[in-house]
Amino acid sequence: MAATSLQDVIDKAGNPVDVLRNSKIGMYVYPVVAPEFVNWRDEQRAWRDSAVLFDQSHHMDELIVEGPQATEFLSYHGINSFSNFDLNRAKHFVPVTPAGNVIGDHIIFREHEQKYILVGRAPTSNWLQFCAAYGKWNVRIKHDPRSPSRPEGERVLRTHYRYQIQGPDAPKIFEKMNGGPIPDIKFFHVDWINVGGKKVQALRHGMSGAPGLEIWGPYADKHYVHSAIMQAAKDAGVDLVQCGSRAYSTNTLESGWIPSPLPAIYTGDGMLEEYRQWLGADAYEAGGAIGGSFVSDNIEDYYVNPFELGYDFYIGWKKDDFIGKDALKKIKEEGPKRKKVTFEWNRDDVLKVIASAFEQGTPYKWIDFPQPNYASTSADMVLNEAGDMVGMSMFNGYSFNERCVLSLGVVGMDVQEGDVLTMKWGEPEKTGKTSTEEHKQTDIRVRVSPTPYSAEARTNYADSWRSRK
Amino acid sequence: MAATSLQDVIDKAGNPVDVLRNSKIGMYVYPVVAPEFVNWRDEQRAWRDSAVLFDQSHHMDELIVEGPQATEFLSYHGINSFSNFDLNRAKHFVPVTPAGNVIGDHIIFREHEQKYILVGRAPTSNWLQFCAAYGKWNVRIKHDPRSPSRPEGERVLRTHYRYQIQGPDAPKIFEKMNGGPIPDIKFFHVDWINVGGKKVQALRHGMSGAPGLEIWGPYADKHYVHSAIMQAAKDAGVDLVQCGSRAYSTNTLESGWIPSPLPAIYTGDGMLEEYRQWLGADAYEAGGAIGGSFVSDNIEDYYVNPFELGYDFYIGWKKDDFIGKDALKKIKEEGPKRKKVTFEWNRDDVLKVIASAFEQGTPYKWIDFPQPNYASTSADMVLNEAGDMVGMSMFNGYSFNERCVLSLGVVGMDVQEGDVLTMKWGEPEKTGKTSTEEHKQTDIRVRVSPTPYSAEARTNYADSWRSRK
Repeated sequence: MAATSLQDVIDKAGNPVDVLRNSKIGMYVYPVVAPEFVNWRDEQRAWRDSAVLFDQSHHMDELIVEGPQATEFLSYHGINSFSNFDLNRAKHFVPVTPAGNVIGDHIIFREHEQKYILVGRAPTSNWLQFCAAYGKWNVRIKHDPRSPSRPEGERVLRTHYRYQIQGPDAPKIFEKMNGGPIPDIKFFHVDWINVGGKKVQALRHGMSGAPGLEIWGPYADKHYVHSAIMQAAKDAGVDLVQCGSRAYSTNTLESGWIPSPLPAIYTGDGMLEEYRQWLGADAYEAGGAIGGSFVSDNIEDYYVNPFELGYDFYIGWKKDDFIGKDALKKIKEEGPKRKKVTFEWNRDDVLKVIASAFEQGTPYKWIDFPQPNYASTSADMVLNEAGDMVGMSMFNGYSFNERCVLSLGVVGMDVQEGDVLTMKWGEPEKTGKTSTEEHKQTDIRVRVSPTPYSAEARTNYADSWRSRK
Repeated sequence: MAATSLQDVIDKAGNPVDVLRNSKIGMYVYPVVAPEFVNWRDEQRAWRDSAVLFDQSHHMDELIVEGPQATEFLSYHGINSFSNFDLNRAKHFVPVTPAGNVIGDHIIFREHEQKYILVGRAPTSNWLQFCAAYGKWNVRIKHDPRSPSRPEGERVLRTHYRYQIQGPDAPKIFEKMNGGPIPDIKFFHVDWINVGGKKVQALRHGMSGAPGLEIWGPYADKHYVHSAIMQAAKDAGVDLVQCGSRAYSTNTLESGWIPSPLPAIYTGDGMLEEYRQWLGADAYEAGGAIGGSFVSDNIEDYYVNPFELGYDFYIGWKKDDFIGKDALKKIKEEGPKRKKVTFEWNRDDVLKVIASAFEQGTPYKWIDFPQPNYASTSADMVLNEAGDMVGMSMFNGYSFNERCVLSLGVVGMDVQEGDVLTMKWGEPEKTGKTSTEEHKQTDIRVRVSPTPYSAEARTNYADSWRSRK
């Protein structure tokens, strides 16, 4: 019989690591939006030098949670404090397992007293849907899954359009769009602005480092709002560059958010076991891929906790209870074991990998530009001089602004900024994963850098490639 | 007043070269089909090692020409002989200007005695639509333009679906699809085969070197036919790899067809002048881009003739008359000046260009993988040791099968296979073209190789990088 749940899939394979390391899903896709509008180098440059327009309407799940217990429900299933959650505010919502490991993360907006909108990858929306049924909460949930990865010409509709405008020249566009100065919106706060003849909600955000606004509304308004934005940029004399799907996912390398931790739901009994039986065999958690040089039989070795991702300051310790509270307390008391960093990849080693694509025989794992990820979750081993694993690289990308390949990940607490470590690049053996060609493994030196990565840091460490090998 | 015709656009700019070298159209797009299904390296490998499925439903114009004068009309506007054009045959249709220069090319199918289907880039379909009106022919024309480059989730419909299956294992799939051995179809001939419960037309083709079939039918049947193909491959035990839009355009590097000559319609009086007044300001010919290091004030320097592209053996010299006949006769008598070749790009020079993307300052023009083209028409100068321009590189791509960057182009008749020449890579100055980042020019050595490029040739010339600089 074919597997119908994630638990079935795991039981058949014996180990969830084998399932995910042999995924047939192909490349992780940022769907519907064109790969490039101008060219991906200038699209990256725009968020640093002028202004960029991200169309975020398609690549994320959206979940609407409403009802008398909406706040209570979300507060219980996320680590965040909800005490200061006014209607004009957004949060970075993080649910964890009872063991305190991250399931995923969403941006959450409070639209009304009893209505929230959450936006992000599938693991959080899947989990919350299960939780609502499991705990018998008085909430209504509407799920609008991300757009299909390969619609091949079929029409794609969403509940909301979602645009983000970023960059040093963005404020000039906002003023034109709004027909006058926009309200002074604080970071991660929400207010209403005009876009042409429409009033829209705007979140003050800054994904790629520069200040910006994320706006959204009914999908039927998408064309109108898009035209109004483009016209406002023209009127403001700003070179607003539309960003395609190839450059899009790399903006996080400069801002430091890791989009793709493995949802920590493959182990654990009780509620988690029931969740794996509830989750379909076609879910993100069952079909997605783990890629990279780090291979462990124990899938828990791929999990991360909120401290490691730098999310501990969100934790609502004063809340009566929430899933994972006890475990997080314990981690806090014992002190976190890892911290988030940026890895700057050594230029010569990157070029060595590329050069192998010009030789006969089995090459090193191709580094695709600007987005070398080849799985839903990346996990590459980072080793110290003694050959001990001291870190894990989790999300990769080339930055034309920084002129280097960067990755985000975690390292042991004793690893210091400026340390030069060695990342194993490529998988140790051939898997059934369709997103990568056959390849051999090699070493890439990586320099530990702060998150977010900054040019200042790069300058300070300019000599470290020579001084620390 | 805004320009409404190509002629208006040219008149405003003064020179058509300036119009095209400053195009704002962005990257040339292969629309609707997903960028990757597995990964582009394995998609390229599949057409060499197993079997590949190309979805060709979206990237080409289709033109249906029917009526009592359909044959006469097409024969007069193309160079091809029509004497042997049976119903079970296809041709590579090439229209030229009265001066004998190539306007474009289409694959042409004869569906009935009085009905032809043509498939290819816009310049040929635009030209034929004009010709039908200009000459007052008794033909009916139906034009189905290529799919929009960036539909962004809107539904896209075509008249026909079009699939091609190629590769050494393709015959096993055909037999399963057909429910038995398929008829023995000769190269560029057409017959009927079964795909599941449907009878479809199949053209024996071989775009990427390996034998294959191109099949087509009503677009409404696309899903059914796609499923039947995938099931047949499964039943046949063949690893049929779907090819995404990133790998697709590179298959021609191995087979030797140049998809993108500049339509030679920007000069010439009489009929051509009327054509430019008829063509819209939003046409391919007005909006497209010329990219590359070759810059001439005289747009005719970008034109090519059928001899140079290796199409002279199509010419129907026995036809009473056709547009360009006298000019082609003269070229034949004088002897053609250039011939088509493949340029193999020097590995070290390619790596030098890539390395510049890891330095501060203005880099060399980025070589995007696997498709470095950044214009509808590419024109890079190829120079000999004395610095004289002896060739033009016209279509670029990286081949994972050959492990090198190749380009197709033309060279003077005295250039020999094995010669090592120098290609100028990148544009001499900043233009308004949005498909390229700011860059500086550099040299890439290229070795002249046969077309189609073959591994045998590469082996024979293995020493030439050292022996000829």
